[in-house]
Amino acid sequence: MHIGLIGLGRMGGNMRARLREHDIEVTGFDQNPAVTDAASVADLVATIPTPRIVWVMVPAGAITDSVIAELGEHLEAGDLIIEGGNSRFTEDLRHAEELSAKGIEYIDAGVSGGIWGHENGYGLMVGGKTEQVERAMPVFDALRPEGPRDEGFVHAGEVGAGHYAKMVHNGIEYALMQAYAEGYELLDKREDIIKDVPGTFKAWQRGTVVRSWLLELLVRALEQDPEFEKIAGYVEDSGEGRWTIEEALASAVPVPTISASIFARFVSRQDQSPAMKAVAALRQQFGGHGVKDAG
Amino acid sequence: MHIGLIGLGRMGGNMRARLREHDIEVTGFDQNPAVTDAASVADLVATIPTPRIVWVMVPAGAITDSVIAELGEHLEAGDLIIEGGNSRFTEDLRHAEELSAKGIEYIDAGVSGGIWGHENGYGLMVGGKTEQVERAMPVFDALRPEGPRDEGFVHAGEVGAGHYAKMVHNGIEYALMQAYAEGYELLDKREDIIKDVPGTFKAWQRGTVVRSWLLELLVRALEQDPEFEKIAGYVEDSGEGRWTIEEALASAVPVPTISASIFARFVSRQDQSPAMKAVAALRQQFGGHGVKDAG
Amino acid sequence: MHIGLIGLGRMGGNMRARLREHDIEVTGFDQNPAVTDAASVADLVATIPTPRIVWVMVPAGAITDSVIAELGEHLEAGDLIIEGGNSRFTEDLRHAEELSAKGIEYIDAGVSGGIWGHENGYGLMVGGKTEQVERAMPVFDALRPEGPRDEGFVHAGEVGAGHYAKMVHNGIEYALMQAYAEGYELLDKREDIIKDVPGTFKAWQRGTVVRSWLLELLVRALEQDPEFEKIAGYVEDSGEGRWTIEEALASAVPVPTISASIFARFVSRQDQSPAMKAVAALRQQFGGHGVKDAG
Amino acid sequence: MHIGLIGLGRMGGNMRARLREHDIEVTGFDQNPAVTDAASVADLVATIPTPRIVWVMVPAGAITDSVIAELGEHLEAGDLIIEGGNSRFTEDLRHAEELSAKGIEYIDAGVSGGIWGHENGYGLMVGGKTEQVERAMPVFDALRPEGPRDEGFVHAGEVGAGHYAKMVHNGIEYALMQAYAEGYELLDKREDIIKDVPGTFKAWQRGTVVRSWLLELLVRALEQDPEFEKIAGYVEDSGEGRWTIEEALASAVPVPTISASIFARFVSRQDQSPAMKAVAALRQQFGGHGVKDAG
Repeated sequence: MHIGLIGLGRMGGNMRARLREHDIEVTGFDQNPAVTDAASVADLVATIPTPRIVWVMVPAGAITDSVIAELGEHLEAGDLIIEGGNSRFTEDLRHAEELSAKGIEYIDAGVSGGIWGHENGYGLMVGGKTEQVERAMPVFDALRPEGPRDEGFVHAGEVGAGHYAKMVHNGIEYALMQAYAEGYELLDKREDIIKDVPGTFKAWQRGTVVRSWLLELLVRALEQDPEFEKIAGYVEDSGEGRWTIEEALASAVPVPTISASIFARFVSRQDQSPAMKAVAALRQQFGGHGVKDAG
Repeated sequence: MHIGLIGLGRMGGNMRARLREHDIEVTGFDQNPAVTDAASVADLVATIPTPRIVWVMVPAGAITDSVIAELGEHLEAGDLIIEGGNSRFTEDLRHAEELSAKGIEYIDAGVSGGIWGHENGYGLMVGGKTEQVERAMPVFDALRPEGPRDEGFVHAGEVGAGHYAKMVHNGIEYALMQAYAEGYELLDKREDIIKDVPGTFKAWQRGTVVRSWLLELLVRALEQDPEFEKIAGYVEDSGEGRWTIEEALASAVPVPTISASIFARFVSRQDQSPAMKAVAALRQQFGGHGVKDAG
Repeated sequence: MHIGLIGLGRMGGNMRARLREHDIEVTGFDQNPAVTDAASVADLVATIPTPRIVWVMVPAGAITDSVIAELGEHLEAGDLIIEGGNSRFTEDLRHAEELSAKGIEYIDAGVSGGIWGHENGYGLMVGGKTEQVERAMPVFDALRPEGPRDEGFVHAGEVGAGHYAKMVHNGIEYALMQAYAEGYELLDKREDIIKDVPGTFKAWQRGTVVRSWLLELLVRALEQDPEFEKIAGYVEDSGEGRWTIEEALASAVPVPTISASIFARFVSRQDQSPAMKAVAALRQQFGGHGVKDAG
Repeated sequence: MHIGLIGLGRMGGNMRARLREHDIEVTGFDQNPAVTDAASVADLVATIPTPRIVWVMVPAGAITDSVIAELGEHLEAGDLIIEGGNSRFTEDLRHAEELSAKGIEYIDAGVSGGIWGHENGYGLMVGGKTEQVERAMPVFDALRPEGPRDEGFVHAGEVGAGHYAKMVHNGIEYALMQAYAEGYELLDKREDIIKDVPGTFKAWQRGTVVRSWLLELLVRALEQDPEFEKIAGYVEDSGEGRWTIEEALASAVPVPTISASIFARFVSRQDQSPAMKAVAALRQQFGGHGVKDAG
């Protein structure tokens, strides 16, 4: 099998490597001439055999939109686009509809695994028509981890289902990270009691209820920097966490831990919290409590 | 009526003034010679008529314990101590039991109103025997706000009920403050939309569902410092908020807004959050996401 | 002044009454023939003097859209629509733009006060051009509560600002209600300590830090049904609360108490929580803990 | 090595089996004659060689207290008690101090792994003196999972550190479970999108960021009951979660996800929420909104 792959950044570049290691021929395109195989999207389309499969792995939003639009101009009826970026599932419905007018097929694929995916394989959640998913199965099989297919891959539903599942996956991920982080702070705060915080996390790796891959990564991080001296308590968030909460609101699903995780990240990025200025001001007003100067 | 009052700080000093303005004779004692009326607790006890009423208004914990112990040595059977500080209600049960061995009566009184109480009167929640509460009613009537007695005073139950009610009052207070503060940040953040944040809060003072005394204080604070430039987003908390959550845990009562309010204060006092360092470290581990240097 | 008013339900009907009591002539239209003054929107437009002012007070969403569209066909350049319903502020931008093509002016007005507004006046937050707001001031003055104008009315910014402010107002309102509710449960749960829960709330009405209009309403509710025996713990939510959280997400503003309030409502409406089924299943899996039969 | 083991319930019984499989001789005692090896605690103490090691694995609280008190009467200086139950770490300090008066040594051991520990080994977190921990190492090595010792065992600090670490472990566990549960509800709610909820969880087991042992258990639970039809959304909690929050309060550590997890369990056990009755009552008061009859 020979496919096209657009976007050769941290994720796409690793995926090309893994695909090739699993005997999928890949022609990649990227704006960066140092990594690209094709001179242009048109060139990529001309290179791969028909009916074509092109995997799109570029930043969600405007860039994904423009890449899909450009592909729509070059591909033909019967070709297949697999959108593997972090798009919102509602975007997939739009993309699929636009492409279907030209007879171009569409699958959305949520991809998990980060920089470890090259080595471990990527967890895949896909949405689309059964026949298209089956057609692309050699690609999915090359990308997914070793082991039974259904432990690293799911055909979750029609178009959009892959990214919906990936969105929920990321919402869970946020809350899992926050859970370990709260535990870390509880251990770290009582250095009078816990003499070996990294060792405690390390010991949780086997036999305990909390063992997980994220725990292993936390152990790894603590081995590299046992008191997190080189790292600031400042955390970005990407769209999926926010979308998860928006979908929860739309479906009336209570998500207290997922939302707490996002809010903790928001606070982490604030130098001064306007809300807490207001609380401090209120305390001063009614109680005559001192406040800390902003200075 | 002539009572003793121990503790003449921000609260006690104002209460003495209000009591005197309402024709209650007060002999006050404080460590601070500049404000005290009596030379010592013993002197205070000797000065006031029997059966005595002594109001204790000192910091909760060890100081309240020692003042009550000292009073226990000087008072006689039939005398009455009213503990008006911010004690935990479980302390009241202990105090009352110890004093009852000597025949000394005990009432716990939760007092709300802050520095405005002198002028507006204090909201009072008391616990104790009915005959003792009735005996002290002239004191409560002098301290409580104008208007119907039951709109500023409650005999909530036996000993401990006053401080339990005050504890819950303060838990609610924390969450109310946080609610307005979140609203403030939402208005403040969109200066492209809301051109007059202080004016918006001011306009909520009449007719709206959110009108309250705390809102009036927020309006006052914004009049003094419209962008909270002189105030840091750093907020202390006193014991009542934490006790409220502990009692909620003991009674299996979900208190998501009260706990969120306390946690927001904890975070506001952190220079660097250990938890968020851990989250940043995790993101870096799995995604290769950049982190902000602790530097 | 003589204006049109479309929508004579619980809010609009009361507003017509208050306007008339304050010497504003009102021609109202409603689908309900029992309450309408005009036979149709066209009839209403024909009845009121030019340049016209028409207040729209119908359910947000599709109905508001269709009423504004219909008005757009009948009004003329220089006429003014005041949209007083619970629209999302983003809708206002769309409405204003569509109408401006015809020279029709637009103000958005957030209205607070519920069924009490007729008697107490309505808190008003408006967005729009200064000259239009001034033109409609007699209407705002009639609707707003007695007292200084700026304590019950704010011109918060351009079109959209009124509904943005109202949205935040409602977000705060949700969290305030939840705060009192958590306090209620904490008092209610310890009937061994608190012998008079309604009396405790009643006593908070004067002098305390937590006094507010919502507190007064809670006292009123407890007077009518002291143990809430006739009321289920089932709470609807309208759009504003959810929008507040969506805006908070868009602006990276942490809103832990507002979101907790919404989630508590979601849970209150669930017969069985899918999430808690999953937690129960997990406990059973690892601990052999018994589960409660769904039956 | 030959040790005593008191408590042969779900945990203790499995631990006896695993110890014996790893060539540790065990004399067990339990109130249940069907499982006990010894007739009494005295009999057990008489049976095992000196200096003795006795592992205590009974319910935390009063039963642990009484077992340790009874052991204190029968053991001699130089003997060692390992307290492996779910005691609060503050209890360990008390136990160790009482026993040290008699020269009896004490180690606290947090044990994780549930009913799977027999097969997989138990994650162990211990607190105590280094020489005592080393003395008991054959027992720990028999109980802990295969693999490097430091991936299933930690000597976390002095007496109390083991149970402090276990308490934090359980706090994290609560939040992890809630995170997956929120994700489950988000998938389950959109059956229009996600056609295979169990399959989606199953697919997360390899390659994804959220893979964990709890995830595997959730997959297992969904295989047994794909829509959780036989399980009610009703979840108990044991002490550790509440203690975690109490310690967080004492140390001023924000724990929003851990507390959200506990509160979700509290709500799950309520037939009617008093708090939500109060919110419904408030809505009715100000907005004339209908309420659902308690009926």
